[in-house]
Parts: sequence; C-alpha cells; structure tokens
Amino acid sequence: MGDVAAVLAEIVGDKHLLTGDQISEDYAHDEALSCEPVKPKYVAKPASTEEVAALLVAASENSLPVTARGSGTGLSGASRPRQDGLLVSFERMNSILEVDVDNQVAVVQPGVTLTELDEKTAEAGLIYTVHPGELAASVGGNVGTNAGGMRAVKYGVTRNNILGLQAVLPTGEIIRSGGKTAKISTGYDLTQLIIGSEGTLALATEIVVKLHPRLAHGATVLAPFGDLDQVMNAVPKVIASGLSPNILEYIDAFTMAAITYTADLSLGIPDAVRDATQAYLVVGLENAEDGRLAEDVQRAGELLTELGAADAYVLDGPSARKLIEAREKAFWTAKNAGADDVIDVVVPRAAMPKFLSSARELATAAESGVVGCGHAGDGNVHLAVFCKDPEKRHKLLHDIFAVAMDLGGAISGEHGIGNTKKSHFLELEDPAKVELLRRIKQSFDPKGILNPGVLFD
Amino acid sequence: MGDVAAVLAEIVGDKHLLTGDQISEDYAHDEALSCEPVKPKYVAKPASTEEVAALLVAASENSLPVTARGSGTGLSGASRPRQDGLLVSFERMNSILEVDVDNQVAVVQPGVTLTELDEKTAEAGLIYTVHPGELAASVGGNVGTNAGGMRAVKYGVTRNNILGLQAVLPTGEIIRSGGKTAKISTGYDLTQLIIGSEGTLALATEIVVKLHPRLAHGATVLAPFGDLDQVMNAVPKVIASGLSPNILEYIDAFTMAAITYTADLSLGIPDAVRDATQAYLVVGLENAEDGRLAEDVQRAGELLTELGAADAYVLDGPSARKLIEAREKAFWTAKNAGADDVIDVVVPRAAMPKFLSSARELATAAESGVVGCGHAGDGNVHLAVFCKDPEKRHKLLHDIFAVAMDLGGAISGEHGIGNTKKSHFLELEDPAKVELLRRIKQSFDPKGILNPGVLFD
Repeated sequence: MGDVAAVLAEIVGDKHLLTGDQISEDYAHDEALSCEPVKPKYVAKPASTEEVAALLVAASENSLPVTARGSGTGLSGASRPRQDGLLVSFERMNSILEVDVDNQVAVVQPGVTLTELDEKTAEAGLIYTVHPGELAASVGGNVGTNAGGMRAVKYGVTRNNILGLQAVLPTGEIIRSGGKTAKISTGYDLTQLIIGSEGTLALATEIVVKLHPRLAHGATVLAPFGDLDQVMNAVPKVIASGLSPNILEYIDAFTMAAITYTADLSLGIPDAVRDATQAYLVVGLENAEDGRLAEDVQRAGELLTELGAADAYVLDGPSARKLIEAREKAFWTAKNAGADDVIDVVVPRAAMPKFLSSARELATAAESGVVGCGHAGDGNVHLAVFCKDPEKRHKLLHDIFAVAMDLGGAISGEHGIGNTKKSHFLELEDPAKVELLRRIKQSFDPKGILNPGVLFD
Repeated sequence: MGDVAAVLAEIVGDKHLLTGDQISEDYAHDEALSCEPVKPKYVAKPASTEEVAALLVAASENSLPVTARGSGTGLSGASRPRQDGLLVSFERMNSILEVDVDNQVAVVQPGVTLTELDEKTAEAGLIYTVHPGELAASVGGNVGTNAGGMRAVKYGVTRNNILGLQAVLPTGEIIRSGGKTAKISTGYDLTQLIIGSEGTLALATEIVVKLHPRLAHGATVLAPFGDLDQVMNAVPKVIASGLSPNILEYIDAFTMAAITYTADLSLGIPDAVRDATQAYLVVGLENAEDGRLAEDVQRAGELLTELGAADAYVLDGPSARKLIEAREKAFWTAKNAGADDVIDVVVPRAAMPKFLSSARELATAAESGVVGCGHAGDGNVHLAVFCKDPEKRHKLLHDIFAVAMDLGGAISGEHGIGNTKKSHFLELEDPAKVELLRRIKQSFDPKGILNPGVLFD
C-alpha cells in the first residue's frame, strides 16, 4: 500500500481503488487460453478522462506499469496485468455520450459494451457494424486489438469504423485525433496508430464510431460441401459475385458438430448429406428491401450449388440466429472440448486452401489436432489447437504461423499479439520492423509504463 | 556536382540522374497555387526498391534532404523539392505488378497513374475506387496525401483502400507492412502511419490496393436547389436513405456556371430554374443490375424533390460524364478564374451549413470571395479563395480554418498540409499533438532527411 496507493485513491476516490484481497480473480486475466492469471498490485476505476490522465502521471512518477482493461474478453492476454502494476479498469467509463443521427456516428466511452451500443443505435435505425463473437466486449477493448468479427467481410474491422479518439498519452497529456469527419489529411493518423496497439501507446477515453443504416431484412444460407478445399475455392467466387454478403464463414464438420450439439440446434440437414460433409459455408445476406433480399438469396443458392455445395439451405430466423450465436461461441466450445490454444491466423483469401492443408499436415506430423472455423471472406482462420505438451505446441504454432507468413499472411487477424503470441511474433517478424515499432513505442511512452511485456519484451 | 552526384549516378545510372540545367521546370513544383517553385540540386529516377534504398543511404550519409514525387499533381506543395536537395521521381517505377482476381487486389509500383490502374483493372471486371479529380495522379502520391475524391462517400479514401506497402525507411531499410490480407492485428499499423505522411516518414515502393467488382450500371441525378442550406440539409437524408450513392457532390451556382461554360456543357435545365438556383446536388448511383438502378434513380428523384429540390434531372451518359469531368476540373477552372488559393476543409457532414455560412461571412468581411463545390457526403468543402493581398489572405484562411476546427473539422480532408498549409496547421493544432508527431517523425527519420519543411519546420 503506502504512498502510491494513497495517491491513486486520491485520484479516483477510495471506493474505486482496489488493493490486495479487494482485487478479485477476474482482474487477473482475460480469456486467452495460454496466459497465466496475475493479480495486479492496484486496480483503479477512473470516472473521467482527467482521472485517467492523473493516474498516468502518478504511474509515470512512480514507474508503475499500467495495463488497461475493458470487459476482459480479449484472447491475446493483452489486458493481463503485471504483478507490480496498476490495472486501469474502464468499467465506470461506460456511457454512450451521443448518437448523432445526421453524422451517422456515436461517441462512446471505452467501457461501453457492444451489446449496449447495439441497443442504443437500434433505436435510431442505425448500427455499429463491428461484431466480434463476444458482444460483452467493450468498444475500448475492440480499439486495443483492432477487433474484427463476422461482418468485417462487408463492413471492415474496427480500424475501418473508428473516426476519432480522445486519448491520454503515458505522459498524461490528453489529445484528440480525428472526430466526426469522414476523412482527414493533416499529418500522421494517430487514431489509426492507437487502434491495434493493445494498450501500449495511449489509453483511449472517448471513441467516435461510424454507424450505418440498419437494414431491415436479412437471411442466412447454409451450404454443406463434401470437401474443405471446395469451400475455400468457393469463397473468392462469392465475393466476386457482387452479392456483398455481410457474413461469409466456414465451419468444419467437427466444429459444426460441436457447436450444434452445445447449442442443441438442429439444422434440418438430412443425415446422408451431413455425413458426407467436410465443411459448411454460411452466407449472410441483407437488404433494405425484402424483394431484393429474396432475389439475392435465390442467386446465392444457385451460385453455391454451382460451386459444389450438396445443397443450399435457407435457415429460418430462429435457426439462423441460433447458428450464428453458436458460431460466435465457437471459442467456448473449443475451450470446453479441451483445446490447448486458439489461434486466428490470417492469409490472403485465396491462400486458405493451401494454408489449411499445410496446417493439418503439420498437426498430424506433430500428433496433434487442429479444427476450426473462420471468417472465410477475410482469410481469417480460427483454429483450435489440441496439443498438451507446451514445447511441442510452441513448435507446432511456430510452424503454422511461419506457413501463414510465407503465404503473405500474419500471426493474427483480429485477436492481437498480447502476451501469448509475443514470442512467435518476435521470432518471425522482420527485426528491422520490430525495431521501428519499438522506436514508435518510445516516441509515445519514453518511460515504458504502458503495458510493458505486451508486443515486445 | 562533385562526389555526391557521382554516388547518386552510380546508383540509378548516369542517364537517370539529372543536375543543373538538365532539371526541367516541371520538377520544381506540384499544382499548389501558393507554393513557389524551387529547383532541386539533383533529380534521381530509380528503377527499383533497392535503388531507392541506396539513394536514401547516400542521402543520409550526405545529409541531403529528399523529396518524393509521383506525378506532381498534389495541391499542398508536399512534392516541391528543396534547393539543396534530392528529388526522387518515381516515373520509372510505374508497373502494375499484378492484378490478383481471387484476392481482389492489385500490386503496383508508386509511379502507376490512376488512369493506368483503371484500364488494367477494368479488364478483370474490377475497380480501384479511389478517384480524386486528377487521374494523372500516381498511386504513390495518393498514398502520400491520403487522397479522397468523389467516390469516397461510398468506398472511403486511400487509407481505406490500401492493404499493404513495401517501403524504404530513411535509414535505407526495406520493410513490408500488411499485404493481400483483409485484416491484421500484429502491432502498430505502419501502412496506416505511412499513408498521409506526405513523404516525411518513408518512401513507398510497392503498394497493395484493394479492388471491388466493377458494377455495370450507373446513373447521375442532378438536383437544383434554391438555397445552399437546403442542399446541405439534404445531404444527411440522402446518406440515411440507404441508396448508398457513389457520388454525392454539391456545386454552387457560381462554380456550376464556370465549369459548364469551360466544358461547353448544356445540362438542359430551363433558364427559370437555373436562375433561381443557389446550388446543385449531384447524386451518382450504381448497381450490378439495371432494374435495381432504375428503381433507385426513381427513389432518389422523389427524395430530392421532397427535400426541396426544384426538380431532379437524370443526366444521359455523355452529359453525366461531361459534368463529372468538368467538376473534377473545378480546380483548374478556379485557377483560370484567378483564384488565389484553393482549400479543402473538412467538417462533420451535418456542420456544412454552419461552416459555409461562416466562411462566406468571413470572406465578405475581408472584402474577398469564396466559392466552391465539394464532396458533400464527406463534409469535404473545396473553396476557391479570391483575395490578392497575402497577409489578408493568410488571416482569412486562418479564420476559416479556425471555424472548421471549432466545428470538429480539420484544415484538410484530402489535399494535405505540405508546405502551403503548414503555418496554419502549426498555429491551430494542439501543441502536445504536434510534439508527438515530431517524435514519431524522429522515430522513423532520426537525421530528418525526408521532406524537411513539410508538416513541420
């Protein structure tokens, strides 16, 4: 305790500073499977940007490592605190400050969850389109990791849907970058630099998100394929069709069995078809007009069977919702099934067949298993890795990541590097680039107080 | 001449290094109206990334300021070289390396022009959607300034359409950032940081651009309004309609008269309507299907007249093309009309009425004129400023920029800061932010050789 605790308590109020046993287990981890929980020395719950700034000044003066936390649903361990550090939890900064209909933006505090933002924007007939699996996630956390999710295939990832930030620098200065404008060309884009920086450059305290008109009509088409390669080869054709799907997911047969079982969901697919299926493509379509949607669904069905699907099933509303929800919970299904890690490699869309066959070969050679699903339209593959031995697993992941990078891809499409993928990142990334990232980090955070150990050692 | 010239000539070949009188006037300027031409000491025309790297190493060793140049069509003076410096002209690095249909990307060298890229992608039924007025512009130059243009209202600006870069750091290291993948979350996004940096951080030598399916059918609706405020108030409603226009421009009556006169274009609008018009809205619509386009055009016409337009004219193909081309040449029209500067302020879309009325009041008070047009859907206003006296003009611009920033906007939406808007930028921007930008610059370019004098002093 001592002086530092008193200084921090002075800033946020006694009640909002936790130390020792007041700190629950929840604050010791995010949802990464391979990151040991660590309880921080302090948890502070600021209520304003000014309090965040004061906390960072105090941390800087006391060389206290600072980790930011939204909902703690991340998968890279980036919000896992340091034992000697301060965890800044944004749970009290959870207001939707404004839904601005004419500019089609909302201004939110970082602790707002996607569920809350979705409910509020729905009232205005608008939608924030970034939709990662976990809707309890906070917008601030999504900024940290550049979250993606299913709808990225049509609307892009967090990076493409944030127009501006207010942020606190590690030196305690409060800056604004971007705003409600659609474009800007006045020097380096700090908004884009902070997005995806996993809490290592600055803490976002206000976020301007882009909204879209909420389209009234949607449909989900499910296409079983006898062969995974066929699914993967179908993906570029669906993109090229101009149908502009808002969901384009693949789910392998193993994962589909697990998620439908867990969700107690029957898809109405005849047993014979199901048994001959190696992977499914899920195609979401939406339109403001019912008639156009019906035409598009028809076209999508025809296209998918042309591309080799055994059939194309249009799911009714409740089944579609249940399937999408079950797919979103695939991470939990994998965790419950005993997966030892979950990775989210990204490759160029057309390189998915090659990547997946290589990954399976590597797993087989390592007497391990990889199964999964993913944002096929984005080339973003989520694999559950079953491999108990830590050393063997590290080697397997290293090899899988190396294949992805050789194919022009990257270690992570949306989960981030955090603590859990750092060793792979530093082993595989160009050292000149890593050095440049370090110098950029230094330009923001000369004392290195923000999330040390994340991205770099 | 001397040693440095010999070193540079050794890198690019004698024929591709220009000095003294070999350097034509063209290399002394871009198209900014308020930036004095300056001939550089050397012009080098590299043919490869390795040559660019060697040039930067030589420049670094000889403390030679380096300015990059694509087609020289910029409007901020960012490619205006230094008298004691080296101009790196990308005119020989002008190959389209690949149009990758399955991944819907193209890989290009920086000197490729938008016209060349458009022709090549058209062959594959695809399109690069960034479409600033000047199609002789190079993709590399567009990366430098984060160029926008008319189609940004639907497809976003350069920033939203570049997936990866190969770039040379001022220290001569060659890095790759991003690639053909739709998303990535592995550390700070260097692609995004380099985009819009106006040649001050690194020189892009290879660019991966995102392509879209080229839609077969398009139409242009022209709506004359009796009142500029009505036009501005109509803009958010058109956006909210879900019609998803690919063009949403306003043109004031003065500018329309000038551009139609220059282009010898008759719009077929009755004299009485034209005389009562204060501004026009131009709405571009496109669709893969003819029938849907026709429905949308119908809906757009009804919406525009509901919103106060005197009428809504569907322009035939040739007239529409001529109008769009004439609008794209509005800068030249303004220049020929004797405009003293052209600015491209951006404000939140819904703040345009307030901004435009304030700008006009300021101009009137300064006994000056501002007229213009702009990317209304983006809140990006292009104003021609008529004010001969440099001091008075500086004050007027300062005041106009300050109003824009008070409204949550910025000095430039797409032209950049360069040399010409730097004094305003440094006067009006938050000093803490400018200091951070300087530190970022330092992290890339410790010796300060890349485009010194641009963005900062």
